[in-house]
Formats: sequence, structure tokens, C-alpha cells
Amino acid sequence: MKLFIANKNYSSWSMRPWLAARSAGIPFEEEMVWLRQPETPALIRARSPNGRVPALIDGDLVVFESIAVLEYLAELAPGLWPQDRAARAHARSICAEMHAGFVPLRNRCSMNMKRAPAPIALDADVEANVDRIVAMWTDCRTRFGAGGDFLFGAFGNADAMYAPVVSRFHSYGVPVPPGVRAYMDAVMATPAWLEWEAAALAETQVIAETDAIC
Amino acid sequence: MKLFIANKNYSSWSMRPWLAARSAGIPFEEEMVWLRQPETPALIRARSPNGRVPALIDGDLVVFESIAVLEYLAELAPGLWPQDRAARAHARSICAEMHAGFVPLRNRCSMNMKRAPAPIALDADVEANVDRIVAMWTDCRTRFGAGGDFLFGAFGNADAMYAPVVSRFHSYGVPVPPGVRAYMDAVMATPAWLEWEAAALAETQVIAETDAIC
Repeated sequence: MKLFIANKNYSSWSMRPWLAARSAGIPFEEEMVWLRQPETPALIRARSPNGRVPALIDGDLVVFESIAVLEYLAELAPGLWPQDRAARAHARSICAEMHAGFVPLRNRCSMNMKRAPAPIALDADVEANVDRIVAMWTDCRTRFGAGGDFLFGAFGNADAMYAPVVSRFHSYGVPVPPGVRAYMDAVMATPAWLEWEAAALAETQVIAETDAIC
Repeated sequence: MKLFIANKNYSSWSMRPWLAARSAGIPFEEEMVWLRQPETPALIRARSPNGRVPALIDGDLVVFESIAVLEYLAELAPGLWPQDRAARAHARSICAEMHAGFVPLRNRCSMNMKRAPAPIALDADVEANVDRIVAMWTDCRTRFGAGGDFLFGAFGNADAMYAPVVSRFHSYGVPVPPGVRAYMDAVMATPAWLEWEAAALAETQVIAETDAIC
């Protein structure tokens, strides 16, 4: 099984299934394509029918769109979703909200793990995204977190889906309440995060912050 | 169990889980809110944490985002996803592609079931969406359709997810190959579609075509 991704410092969508698979102990190879090269679109299109990263290639099967890859991984490692039906439905709801939403945040605070953490001015639409995510994370941990460090107890698909948002909040110095900061610190201390981050920091490509990768 | 939706002529996102639940024989009540009224945002926000329709309300649980509602329905009626693992992964991939994609088509060809079918000029980005969807539907039916009328054999979540695109292609006279037209006709002849459509046609609200609901 091979996960086809873009380079780690910038590709937030690639990060999601990679963290889920690694944290669940699912073995996989990876193939990486550099973003924003002349050959990038053709390389991606040759592997992924929607022309986007990530894609999971399992024999003849190509699973594309990160949320569908997360579902596929959860069929191999069911612990990636909460066991409780209501919690699982809520986890899927917030993952879907991320999948299609938070465009202002994604545009303005492009993931860049090498960025020296420092606050920026946030427009009202970005602030609204931040407020919604802070409320969502707090609600998940209160109702479903079972006193653990993550959104639904153990690290799972929902944490993987929001991990690039953790990176953005950290890198762009977004003010958050202490409980949210504790959640971010827990995500950033997982072995899967640390492995991804070390690879990201070792990359040499530099893409301008104004040239958003969302 | 109650499905919270917006009015049927225009709310493509509401149509998706409604058709899935109805076609699978899952009993549900519905509560409808009119789009574009002064009170609409507050009414939606009171029921759905992401501030959008649809939402499925099952006791204390609120499932939101249509793709998460489709997953919830498939836990109640597993036939909504293909039984074969590869087909199911592919169905989820194309549903996720719809969930976050095809924005030019959604903006330019807003769902309006009352529209007298007639072609419009399509910009290149809309054409690219149409080409991708035609290729996708053809590929699904060839590889997974098992000679049936729908994308993966029986009518399921993938057909429900793309039903509003069927409506758009029909209403805006989008040129499609005969096999795709046959698929569209099959979707438009299902009892669930006919029931939704009859209710849509009976609605009185008129929203200008330039005021896209995507």
C-alpha cells in the first residue's frame, strides 16, 4: 500500500491520512511529489483521478480525497473512528466540515511548518473560522474526549483531519484558550507528528506566504 | 429521526441525504426552512452547529454535513454503500470530490428544478467540471455498475450525492453522451426523486438565477 503525497512542509491535505495511518500502525510506503513544479500537475494526474494529492494506492485500487482515504484506513484500523455511534457521527461531521470549509483560514494561514511562530492580523472571516474551530474542539473534548488528550479520547481521524489547523494556529500565533493550547501541544507531541515535522523541516523548497496552498 | 432541510427546489445539499434515506426506506420526519429569508441563518444555526443545512437530528445527536449524514444513514442501511471494499472506497472518493468540489458548476448552474430545460453557454471551468463528472460516471458504471442503471449497481449514496448534478445537467441542457443521459433518466425515474421533485415544483419561492445557491 502506497500513500501518494506532496512535500511535507506545505501539503496539509497529504498530512492528514499520513498521520492517521502512521498513528494507527498501518504499514505503507510513500511517494512524494514536489508542489508547484512544472511537472507537478501531470505527475499528480497520472496517479489520482481528481488531479489532487493525497491518494492511497492499494494494488489496483486508488482511493482519493483525504476524507475517503481516512474512511479506508478506518476499515483497516477501526480505532481511527470512535467506537460509540454518536461520537463517530460527530467525528465524521466535523471532518466533513473541514473537508469543504474554513477557506479563509486556509487561504490566509497556509501551512508552513518552518515558519517561526508569530502572530499576524486576522481578517474577520478568518477570526470567524478560528472561533468556530475553538468552539468545536472544546465541545468535542468536553462531550467525547473522556478526559484524554485528544478530540475523542485516543488520537484518531478527527485529530488527523485537524492537525494542519493545529500547525496553522501554532505558526501564525493564533490566540486560543489554555484548553485548546493543551490539545495542540498533545497533537504536536505525538510520534507521528514529530516524524512528519522532522521531514518537513529538512525540506529545501520555499514557497512565498502570499502564494497560498490551501 | 428528523431531517432538517431547506426548500426542495433550490437546496441541492438537502436533497442528497433525503434521497438516500427515502430510497433506503429509512423512516424520518422532515423540518423545512425557507432559504434567503431574514430569519433563515438564525433558524439554521439553532439546529445545526456548522450553520448549514442539512442536518439529521436523532434524539440528542445532530449529524451535520451531508457526507457525514450519508455515512450515518449507511450505518442504518448498509446497502447505501457498495458491499465490495474497492467499490465502496471508490464511491466514498467520488462523494468526497463532490462534497468539496465542482464550485464553478455549482455557481453557474444553481439547482432549480422548475427551470424549463434549456442550454446555456458554459465557461471553460464549468466545462472542465462537466468533463470530469461525465468521465467519472462512465467509469463507475463500467467498472462497478454491474450492468445496472446506477453508478454502483443499486441506487445508493453516490447516486444521491450526484442527484443535484443530474438535475443541473438536465435543467441547463448540458450535452452528455447517451450512456450518461440514460443514467440521468434512471435517477430521475426513481420514486424518491419523483416525490422530491413534486414537492419542489409545488413551492412558490423564486430566487434569481444570478443569485447562486451552491
